[in-house]
Amino acid sequence: MNNEVSILENINNPSDIKNLSETELENLCSEIRKTLVDTVASTGGHLASNLGTVELTVALHKSFNSPDDKIVWDVGHQAYAHKLLTGRYPSFSTLRTEGGVSGFVRPDESEHDSFYEGHAGVSVSQAAGIAAANAVKGSKNYAVAVIGDGSFGNGMVYEALNHAGSTKTRLIVILNDNEMSISENVGAMARYLAAVRAKPEYYRFKAGTEKTLRRIPLVGKSLSNHIFKLKTTLKNIIYSSSFFEDLGFKYIGPIDGHNISSLCEAMNSAKMVSVPVVIHINTVKGRGYDFAETAPEKFHGISKFDINTGEPLSSGDSFSVHFGKTLGEFASKDRRICAITAAMALGTGLEEFSKNYSERFYDVGIAEEHAVTFASGLSAGGMIPVFAVYSTFLQRCSDQLIHDGALQRKKMVIAVDRAGFVGEDGETHQGLFDVSLTQSLPNTTVYSPSTYNELSKAMYNAFYKDENLVVIRYPRGSMPDVGDFNNTSGADYEVIGNADADIAIVTYGRLYFNAVKAIHMLYEKGLNVKIIKIHKIKPMPQGVSEEASKCKSIFFFEEGMRSGGTGEALAARLLENGYQGKFSLTAVEDEFVSHASVPKLMEKYSLSAEKMSQKILNEVMR
Amino acid sequence: MNNEVSILENINNPSDIKNLSETELENLCSEIRKTLVDTVASTGGHLASNLGTVELTVALHKSFNSPDDKIVWDVGHQAYAHKLLTGRYPSFSTLRTEGGVSGFVRPDESEHDSFYEGHAGVSVSQAAGIAAANAVKGSKNYAVAVIGDGSFGNGMVYEALNHAGSTKTRLIVILNDNEMSISENVGAMARYLAAVRAKPEYYRFKAGTEKTLRRIPLVGKSLSNHIFKLKTTLKNIIYSSSFFEDLGFKYIGPIDGHNISSLCEAMNSAKMVSVPVVIHINTVKGRGYDFAETAPEKFHGISKFDINTGEPLSSGDSFSVHFGKTLGEFASKDRRICAITAAMALGTGLEEFSKNYSERFYDVGIAEEHAVTFASGLSAGGMIPVFAVYSTFLQRCSDQLIHDGALQRKKMVIAVDRAGFVGEDGETHQGLFDVSLTQSLPNTTVYSPSTYNELSKAMYNAFYKDENLVVIRYPRGSMPDVGDFNNTSGADYEVIGNADADIAIVTYGRLYFNAVKAIHMLYEKGLNVKIIKIHKIKPMPQGVSEEASKCKSIFFFEEGMRSGGTGEALAARLLENGYQGKFSLTAVEDEFVSHASVPKLMEKYSLSAEKMSQKILNEVMR
Repeated sequence: MNNEVSILENINNPSDIKNLSETELENLCSEIRKTLVDTVASTGGHLASNLGTVELTVALHKSFNSPDDKIVWDVGHQAYAHKLLTGRYPSFSTLRTEGGVSGFVRPDESEHDSFYEGHAGVSVSQAAGIAAANAVKGSKNYAVAVIGDGSFGNGMVYEALNHAGSTKTRLIVILNDNEMSISENVGAMARYLAAVRAKPEYYRFKAGTEKTLRRIPLVGKSLSNHIFKLKTTLKNIIYSSSFFEDLGFKYIGPIDGHNISSLCEAMNSAKMVSVPVVIHINTVKGRGYDFAETAPEKFHGISKFDINTGEPLSSGDSFSVHFGKTLGEFASKDRRICAITAAMALGTGLEEFSKNYSERFYDVGIAEEHAVTFASGLSAGGMIPVFAVYSTFLQRCSDQLIHDGALQRKKMVIAVDRAGFVGEDGETHQGLFDVSLTQSLPNTTVYSPSTYNELSKAMYNAFYKDENLVVIRYPRGSMPDVGDFNNTSGADYEVIGNADADIAIVTYGRLYFNAVKAIHMLYEKGLNVKIIKIHKIKPMPQGVSEEASKCKSIFFFEEGMRSGGTGEALAARLLENGYQGKFSLTAVEDEFVSHASVPKLMEKYSLSAEKMSQKILNEVMR
Repeated sequence: MNNEVSILENINNPSDIKNLSETELENLCSEIRKTLVDTVASTGGHLASNLGTVELTVALHKSFNSPDDKIVWDVGHQAYAHKLLTGRYPSFSTLRTEGGVSGFVRPDESEHDSFYEGHAGVSVSQAAGIAAANAVKGSKNYAVAVIGDGSFGNGMVYEALNHAGSTKTRLIVILNDNEMSISENVGAMARYLAAVRAKPEYYRFKAGTEKTLRRIPLVGKSLSNHIFKLKTTLKNIIYSSSFFEDLGFKYIGPIDGHNISSLCEAMNSAKMVSVPVVIHINTVKGRGYDFAETAPEKFHGISKFDINTGEPLSSGDSFSVHFGKTLGEFASKDRRICAITAAMALGTGLEEFSKNYSERFYDVGIAEEHAVTFASGLSAGGMIPVFAVYSTFLQRCSDQLIHDGALQRKKMVIAVDRAGFVGEDGETHQGLFDVSLTQSLPNTTVYSPSTYNELSKAMYNAFYKDENLVVIRYPRGSMPDVGDFNNTSGADYEVIGNADADIAIVTYGRLYFNAVKAIHMLYEKGLNVKIIKIHKIKPMPQGVSEEASKCKSIFFFEEGMRSGGTGEALAARLLENGYQGKFSLTAVEDEFVSHASVPKLMEKYSLSAEKMSQKILNEVMR
């Protein structure tokens, strides 16, 4: 690997690459790869996907004129090279740190970032909207969506293709087929793409047909149409692209996604027709860094790691791991228990389960809506389905939770991982909305365990005690150690500390640990404060408001949105019951939460132990 | 049309039809049609779709053994015949009335109803879940999803097909292709199906191939496989069914959906393979009732009507009509304004707009997720997009509102129709969750106008005053007349009645009219009560809590879920600010709201004028 970055450091704007020679472009790609590996090793982040899209990014900026032409990155985790080419090379070492370069695209960083991105499957809709606006305005600019094959399991993509395929707009969809999504890719679309890849004709296409296409001068619409006609004739020796063509798109591909000139040629062909086009490219995740190429899943989203061994610098137990292990234990004794993931088997701790109970394990792809409704079907069939999903992606299935979950009065469990701050991934990944989304669900129980033991207890309750829909939410990462205070009872709520104290912290989930530290700090200042810790946050146990109303001052702390959270619910009950004491609610007010480490976010949103104790001191002392 | 129901009235259970002769089955269909038209004329309901599925329903119950085999009706609005054959003929005249037979399927009515249904696109996921559970349990029962072609615009269906196509389960999907969904069907899938229908080979298939298939005795798996092999050979003279086969399904069709023996034959063929099958049938909406057959859209969901003329017994102005008209006026002056609907152009009042501004009108099909994200793309392209959607379907795009709406800080407007009680359509259609869903959205403004003028004002504000995402919610039906009290100011909030009163009703939206009546009733009892009417419910104007806190008693009434509503939000602010008076919050507590007329629901949930005044009298007098 080249140790210089002499080309990259001179690129301030994507137009700077337009006149580079083929060799210079190849060297640029090497410099980008080196920068990616060096940076992510020290900051953590997405590596494999970014190594796979280096040539694609270079080709995009060579073929299109950003920001007039809009490049829309699906999920936006694979746009590091795009950042390096759009003026963010000098600040790239601040990747994913507070105030530094975000790990995802965001318009407030650069005019070359079209949207804030983070969730899968939205790019085609977004680009279709831009293309439609261009059509109304008579603009000749292009909208280009770059989307991975994994996102094709998501229904939104299909909704967008279905709609856009019937329009006459300058929309180009680049299907970046890297033979895997976050974990193993699943479903019919994956099989379809695999079949394409397996065809010997594909290689013939690469070796021969591309060259044929290349010899045809690309100088206008009629010739471009000729190419498409040629493609139709050649179809049998390429492969049947009927899927996309049924949907109304022109289709070009598959193209070698690591060959810049092939990519540019395909893009220039696509530009010459005024109808939507799919360009299907093949790339290799982790390309150019052996460890990542060999184990791309491990290098999808990774913590800081050792460049020479590829090993992460830290590891440990986590709520996800505990959840997966415990679920396996329950499943070993109860054949009804089954697990569903939406392409997140590793992240949600279900890898072991998927091996041990493969006949009861369902990876449905990035399809959270289907996952919930599929669960209601499993439940109707007598199973006890558990859908494990990140809090931020639970947002995707809000209607399914209402209509296909709560309304059905059937036993099903949603395990909500990454609930609360997630840290470095920022706005699009924070788990701050799940409480307000689930609070308004009738017939539903919601647990927010603080400890591993409480998580087990909540799972037991969900399987054998509660009815209907049960939601269990827990944070990213591992349980802190607060000594004896880790031994909570697992009751629906409990009072911790001096029961006679007339000042109470009311909280739930991970903030319990901050509260424990806070009451110790306050005790040292001579102030007696107890904790009312809620485990079952819906329906709120009667005792919580009874206990709270005995206190002169109530301080509610919530790691989630204030609106629709449990704090507001408790406040309303207290007020209706004539509570006359002081009440203070600290939660995330009306804003999105940017990337920073979790401790920094706790501090920023006044939820750290220090901030808790300060707030109480200030209020009580004044 | 036959005037007897001698066959139908003797059917208490679907097994009763198994031994009927072909002629008896045909007469049964006539009797069902007569009952449907007679009943819906006097109760209102879905007519065209139900007239289209009579033979299908008979064939389903003849070919499958419900409830061991599960029939899952997508949306569930087309299951009237199913109700008539499953013991609900005697009570069918109570259709859609309080305590009577629901207009949708619901398990608490019959063991033959698998799920509570109401939203589009869920049936394949539900049936796939049941089929998967059957596979784990080793059960030989079938799960059958019945889904209209309109629902195929919804991404969930694709997620489900994508997943289920890779399983080996006894799942049968019946695609009921009636050449239209609620309004005109759109998108690539619609075009694909239209192409199939237009092929002369299709008719040849009907006339010839089906007979060929029929001659083959269907007695076991190997023969059935033979049939599929035959179909593959015959493919060229039938048509390319590659779409479903690409997705991993066996495909049978198209079948004449009004021919019971063809339908049964197809179903029996499908039963003989242990992998998922799609049966594609063609039906005619409104079949057998001329007015409905000629104008099926009008008879999709209809109010009571005159059987002899097909004309509705009532009509009138509505918030939807006012919205559509006003949007057209704005659009005539501002070329940036465009409109999006998810297959609800008629219901949301956009028919005129779609004709006058066709180049700025987008019907994306039943695809609410795409609709919101497509809007964010239009906005990025410089347009001002307005997505008009029913409150209940807004639930489908919760993440898109968060991730592709609020987060993007781009101007886009969501017009939420049918917000609040919708009445006869029941649980699945009530608009009770939109407030809690939108309250927690950062960077967002939410209006809940009470009057037509306020609706216009909110639209003006959204287009020219507010930034980012704006939500405007308004009820189903028309504005009540309360004389001068209709002349509200359109301000973000206002105080109505005697400003010096120390009792206040706080409310918003349609409940304002009930409040006006209530303060008149209370005035007659000698009690002075004012109304604090909120127009902009998010961010809540500072003045609301200031005005409210001047009062000794605050009565908050909310036509929506209590959890996460504005009432709880106000209560929390009041308590934090040290309010010491009485506070009472009346909203929909933790339950789903069944079908009944809107006035009955207002009464039941203590939101009518009478209940408001009673509540206040009781509290104040005690």
